[in-house]
Amino acid sequence: MPIVEVHLLKGRTLDQKRRLVQEMTRVLCETLAVKPEQVRILLSEMEKEDYAIGGILSKDRETGSHG
Amino acid sequence: MPIVEVHLLKGRTLDQKRRLVQEMTRVLCETLAVKPEQVRILLSEMEKEDYAIGGILSKDRETGSHG
Amino acid sequence: MPIVEVHLLKGRTLDQKRRLVQEMTRVLCETLAVKPEQVRILLSEMEKEDYAIGGILSKDRETGSHG
Amino acid sequence: MPIVEVHLLKGRTLDQKRRLVQEMTRVLCETLAVKPEQVRILLSEMEKEDYAIGGILSKDRETGSHG
Amino acid sequence: MPIVEVHLLKGRTLDQKRRLVQEMTRVLCETLAVKPEQVRILLSEMEKEDYAIGGILSKDRETGSHG
Amino acid sequence: MPIVEVHLLKGRTLDQKRRLVQEMTRVLCETLAVKPEQVRILLSEMEKEDYAIGGILSKDRETGSHG
Repeated sequence: MPIVEVHLLKGRTLDQKRRLVQEMTRVLCETLAVKPEQVRILLSEMEKEDYAIGGILSKDRETGSHG
Repeated sequence: MPIVEVHLLKGRTLDQKRRLVQEMTRVLCETLAVKPEQVRILLSEMEKEDYAIGGILSKDRETGSHG
Repeated sequence: MPIVEVHLLKGRTLDQKRRLVQEMTRVLCETLAVKPEQVRILLSEMEKEDYAIGGILSKDRETGSHG
Repeated sequence: MPIVEVHLLKGRTLDQKRRLVQEMTRVLCETLAVKPEQVRILLSEMEKEDYAIGGILSKDRETGSHG
Repeated sequence: MPIVEVHLLKGRTLDQKRRLVQEMTRVLCETLAVKPEQVRILLSEMEKEDYAIGGILSKDRETGSHG
Repeated sequence: MPIVEVHLLKGRTLDQKRRLVQEMTRVLCETLAVKPEQVRILLSEMEKEDYAIGGILSKDRETGSHG
């Protein structure tokens, strides 16, 4: 612990992921008083057709097919 | 909030997803008294070899290799 | 399948939960062509101090202590 | 998006949670190029009898009842 | 890895949890060729009013109020 | 119930998955006193660039680029 799952849209670079897990681990250690090796982070990437806000898929929001 | 994660087997069309998130968002708004823009839905599609009921993978249940 | 997890803030009545799972199950059956007994829904209630938007806990957003 | 779920053991103060979500949101915005209002964080607190490493519950690891 | 989350209804004893995580860890190590200390298991207990099959809450299924 | 989600790194064979869900289901039935058909298991496979321990991606840990 802590175990963190991050749901994010596809398209980030490997380097963005590297910095994300490095910085998030630092923040978790500082605020929760844990050691880095206790921190596990899972990145879960999603397609734009698999995420919706307000009942509209991200895919449709962009192309405007829903309005 | 609410944030909803739907685990489902692969194979649905884009239009099925569209209707699913639209209808689910309407139901969530009606029953929980929230606004559409507060509702987030994540669809998590799974392969048939990654889901099991009763200790048997969906993949095997169909082809009968475990049956 | 499908298996659905709904994260929502605490405070809903038993009757709201009843209608939520009933209506969501109907929508899932209609849009995904599954049978009701295949649908499983988990409700995960959260305290206002355990949910944040924009880096501010829901608890603080209400009382204005961060605002 | 991003939507982040943090599983952590019970016992953190409200102020620790405040700083955690504030700092994590900042990191997510900086590394993923998103706006703060897009970031949602869910904290999921666990009892020591509900978490195990190496097959031993945290509760037992502390009191030594499992060795 | 692996990280396992088990959703189960409330009411299990501490000893049931102990045996569950011990046995599950053994199975994970044997079938996936990992070491025990790599295995993390989270138990997530649910109230009967927070789980539904076929659109009916477990709470209602028992008392028969839905049917 | 129980519903189990297993996060694991990619690369396991179909046969490893078969034995994993079969054995885990048996353990769940024995320790929690449930019937096999009540047990549902979801396998969620992850790429090595989507999992981090101690702030370092599994991908980097192997190749040594971070270390």
